[in-house]
Amino acid sequence: MNSEQLFQSIRKKESFLCVGLDSDLNKIPRHLKELERPVYEFNKQIVDTTAPYAVAFKPNLAFYECRGPEGWKDLELTVNYIKSTYPEIFLIADAKRGDIGNTSKKYAQTFFEYMDFDAVTVAPYMGEDSVRPFLGFPGKYVILLALTSNPSAADFQYFSSKDHRTLFSEVIDKSKNWGDPDHLMFVVGATKAAMLVTIREMVPDHFLLVPGVGAQGGSLEEVAKYGLNRQCGLLVNASRSIIFAGDGSDYETKAAHEARELQTQMQRLLAAAGLL
Amino acid sequence: MNSEQLFQSIRKKESFLCVGLDSDLNKIPRHLKELERPVYEFNKQIVDTTAPYAVAFKPNLAFYECRGPEGWKDLELTVNYIKSTYPEIFLIADAKRGDIGNTSKKYAQTFFEYMDFDAVTVAPYMGEDSVRPFLGFPGKYVILLALTSNPSAADFQYFSSKDHRTLFSEVIDKSKNWGDPDHLMFVVGATKAAMLVTIREMVPDHFLLVPGVGAQGGSLEEVAKYGLNRQCGLLVNASRSIIFAGDGSDYETKAAHEARELQTQMQRLLAAAGLL
Repeated sequence: MNSEQLFQSIRKKESFLCVGLDSDLNKIPRHLKELERPVYEFNKQIVDTTAPYAVAFKPNLAFYECRGPEGWKDLELTVNYIKSTYPEIFLIADAKRGDIGNTSKKYAQTFFEYMDFDAVTVAPYMGEDSVRPFLGFPGKYVILLALTSNPSAADFQYFSSKDHRTLFSEVIDKSKNWGDPDHLMFVVGATKAAMLVTIREMVPDHFLLVPGVGAQGGSLEEVAKYGLNRQCGLLVNASRSIIFAGDGSDYETKAAHEARELQTQMQRLLAAAGLL
Repeated sequence: MNSEQLFQSIRKKESFLCVGLDSDLNKIPRHLKELERPVYEFNKQIVDTTAPYAVAFKPNLAFYECRGPEGWKDLELTVNYIKSTYPEIFLIADAKRGDIGNTSKKYAQTFFEYMDFDAVTVAPYMGEDSVRPFLGFPGKYVILLALTSNPSAADFQYFSSKDHRTLFSEVIDKSKNWGDPDHLMFVVGATKAAMLVTIREMVPDHFLLVPGVGAQGGSLEEVAKYGLNRQCGLLVNASRSIIFAGDGSDYETKAAHEARELQTQMQRLLAAAGLL
């Protein structure tokens, strides 16, 4: 999927919502636990009821690998279900991988060949040769961590040089030419919305994946105000606030309600920006 | 395992060798591929023949997860085999994980509870709250990336502040008090051995995991010269140069030979430093 196709999907659904599948077995509704594959069943229901309001889904690898091979099987089934049922969905592996070249290549093969993800989140600490192996797959994206949504992001991401550049700007500046907007995106936390002004100056055309709306408290209005570009250029993620909106037998209805609320706000913001 | 116990293991084996299990299915000897679990059988043979010369083993997660649930099953079997057969071995998950708190917690549970690793490599980019969840397990270690062995390490790890501090020193300086030498180690590439002088001034007592000897070209003598401390304080890793030393039916003998060569050099270096 190239960025123009993603934009068309955003226009069609009038939404730039990404639903995070942080599908913690301990938190899913009790009645599902009697089934053979509770997490997969949970994901299917969440995907079916929220897909009308979302352009992307983002399984968080930690919540699958913590159950070993069985968790990976649930992930694989979820990926296959989404790709076969909703081919227009942009599918992100939230994995935050990154290692020396030969190892990053294996990680890239995991997410882009063994499984059919459209994108994978990558940590920049080890530099260009740790990111490059993810960039050689047609129609696939690296989503590089730039400015994350957690409080401790300030520990190193704001580390600044003698000419007052911060590490996160250095990451964006150095990496923005490693991949064009059809192969590279950046993670920018919604809790750091004001920084989007600076970031948009550096990368006017790249998409940004924005976590932190919902459970982490970021503001969608602020994100849109500073982050929208001529192709929308934003995927805003919410995980827990949608998928765990309910914990009873109507959990999928509650999830759909939350997703629809966000989609309605996004529709208004897209319209106001003249993008619909 | 605390650092004193690790030091005792080093004294007993007269070695500070870590063998990296980057067990790529495409590279293992052909005759193993007829077996039901080629990678697990390969690992068992490598572990059995090199364990006399090594104090640690380090499976590299990428080479397992690239085969999905089946790869994870091989990893799990390998971990169980090592822990039950060689309880004195220090077992490292080379995973380079790191995410917001609730996600890092799941990753920590994966490696320390679901599996019985002694340590996991963690990327520092997201800061303290992404590392803390890995530090709360008695007898378990975070091995934090500081200065890595790959050429592009220079991209961001040498990014320097107005008072000439580099990012990698900032990472060590800020994090060294998050965990004592019984809970925290650092990754420092053998290809950056000269920097060990500076690093040892910052963390005189913490163990360092040193990759890059062997296939990546780092020098063991240099690493020992600048890196040894009063508890040895070093785990030097070699992966491909040991496990793929041979590709025929005598692969395990060739691996053992390579491991023994390194152990012999280490014995000499430990003796010269008065540590035996």
